[in-house]
Amino acid sequence: MKSTKAEIIAFLQAEFPQSLEKCDIESVTEKGASIIYHINAADLRPGGTVSGPTMMTAADYALYIAILGEIGIVALAVTTNLSTNFLRKPSADQDIRAVCRLMKVGKALIVGDVWLYSLDSDEPIAHVVGTYSIPPQR
Amino acid sequence: MKSTKAEIIAFLQAEFPQSLEKCDIESVTEKGASIIYHINAADLRPGGTVSGPTMMTAADYALYIAILGEIGIVALAVTTNLSTNFLRKPSADQDIRAVCRLMKVGKALIVGDVWLYSLDSDEPIAHVVGTYSIPPQR
Amino acid sequence: MKSTKAEIIAFLQAEFPQSLEKCDIESVTEKGASIIYHINAADLRPGGTVSGPTMMTAADYALYIAILGEIGIVALAVTTNLSTNFLRKPSADQDIRAVCRLMKVGKALIVGDVWLYSLDSDEPIAHVVGTYSIPPQR
Amino acid sequence: MKSTKAEIIAFLQAEFPQSLEKCDIESVTEKGASIIYHINAADLRPGGTVSGPTMMTAADYALYIAILGEIGIVALAVTTNLSTNFLRKPSADQDIRAVCRLMKVGKALIVGDVWLYSLDSDEPIAHVVGTYSIPPQR
Repeated sequence: MKSTKAEIIAFLQAEFPQSLEKCDIESVTEKGASIIYHINAADLRPGGTVSGPTMMTAADYALYIAILGEIGIVALAVTTNLSTNFLRKPSADQDIRAVCRLMKVGKALIVGDVWLYSLDSDEPIAHVVGTYSIPPQR
Repeated sequence: MKSTKAEIIAFLQAEFPQSLEKCDIESVTEKGASIIYHINAADLRPGGTVSGPTMMTAADYALYIAILGEIGIVALAVTTNLSTNFLRKPSADQDIRAVCRLMKVGKALIVGDVWLYSLDSDEPIAHVVGTYSIPPQR
Repeated sequence: MKSTKAEIIAFLQAEFPQSLEKCDIESVTEKGASIIYHINAADLRPGGTVSGPTMMTAADYALYIAILGEIGIVALAVTTNLSTNFLRKPSADQDIRAVCRLMKVGKALIVGDVWLYSLDSDEPIAHVVGTYSIPPQR
Repeated sequence: MKSTKAEIIAFLQAEFPQSLEKCDIESVTEKGASIIYHINAADLRPGGTVSGPTMMTAADYALYIAILGEIGIVALAVTTNLSTNFLRKPSADQDIRAVCRLMKVGKALIVGDVWLYSLDSDEPIAHVVGTYSIPPQR
């Protein structure tokens, strides 16, 4: 692990502050991270559920935090692929926990998966696999 | 084709009006649809680009419109899988066109892909493959 | 769990015997299964590695065994989507273990993921997410 | 285009001759390729259909040929992701055509999709999106 939770928060406050209004970083661990994404009215869809893009946002963010923890502060990492399976209807009145584990940390590509949960249930609402491309060191 | 563009717009105005504030339906064709998604400040990311979730929202919407056109007004269709490859950096000051084609229209599952473009370029910014589950007729 | 390992083997011997020449079922558990896929010369690729299609075959098979265990003997279940991330180079002289867990068991769709390993390492060689469609009961 | 069909065939005959026993290269075009994969008994599954892994093999091969055409003879390109949607039941007695188009040709990653057809039909049997990683030039 190259960055701590505190270092990552300091980086995000400087470069990407709006992300911290919506998300709390719970933990940054060896090849993993857990975040809480706060749901508000803009995240909801008719029928009392959370939108798919909100779930994908939370997953992408958890993956980014796990990568920052693992390889250090890399502003330029970009998502190249994100594949989501929507599993169960999220609760409209619950925040979302996104738990990421990195499955491969290569020089050019990092792959991880993310499980998403409404906070009132242990059954996942979605599973996401994502790939980030890491620019060559200069 | 079971629904026209006008019928789909009437349905969305009744059931999902906020979607029409962000999107214009350009066309609904045989097993396809094209929409324009309007970018505003909330869709942008540092570095002068459009967020991944915004691109996935536009793609999911184009797929939904194509499905409504093909099988008729079905409020309960739900996305089960969405897989996105991010191909090029979108222009921050350009709306996005999402062009969907359905590749399979089954009784239970509909699969389609969507090409996304910034309006100032013919090179796609992302490619999305999505699957919708259609509830059994009652 | 609706089928035991012994019941699944009996079914495969009757309907799909060639699968048992290549694979041993290690275990069938609550929403999961583990198999060993035996590598032979036809599975190899230049450079001393195992082919991608061989890995996908092993994953698809583990997913099918887990489904048979979970919902009972259903000859007609079909794969609708299979998404593979290739993580590390497999060992050419090692069999492959495929470990499946089902993440959603719905009436129409079952989704699971599979981790693949060369038997000489604990690092996964590939990760697969697959969806099966289950035909309506008659 | 950096390699012609004849140059690619010469390379495959030297490095990967068994591939040419199963496949004919129909065409290598600007950012695309088309191949024919010959089906034999080992490719079939109970119920008179072609196996999923056979379809994925054909798709991966078409993608590889398109990449060789586009960037030149690169023995070390490796598949990092392959995502397949199975759309229709293939004909057991028909060879398969795989038609690839590259959607992004980057320095490190190449992404393309492949449509698969049984030769007796214009309806696709599967759609595949794949990513190849290209090793840095030495």
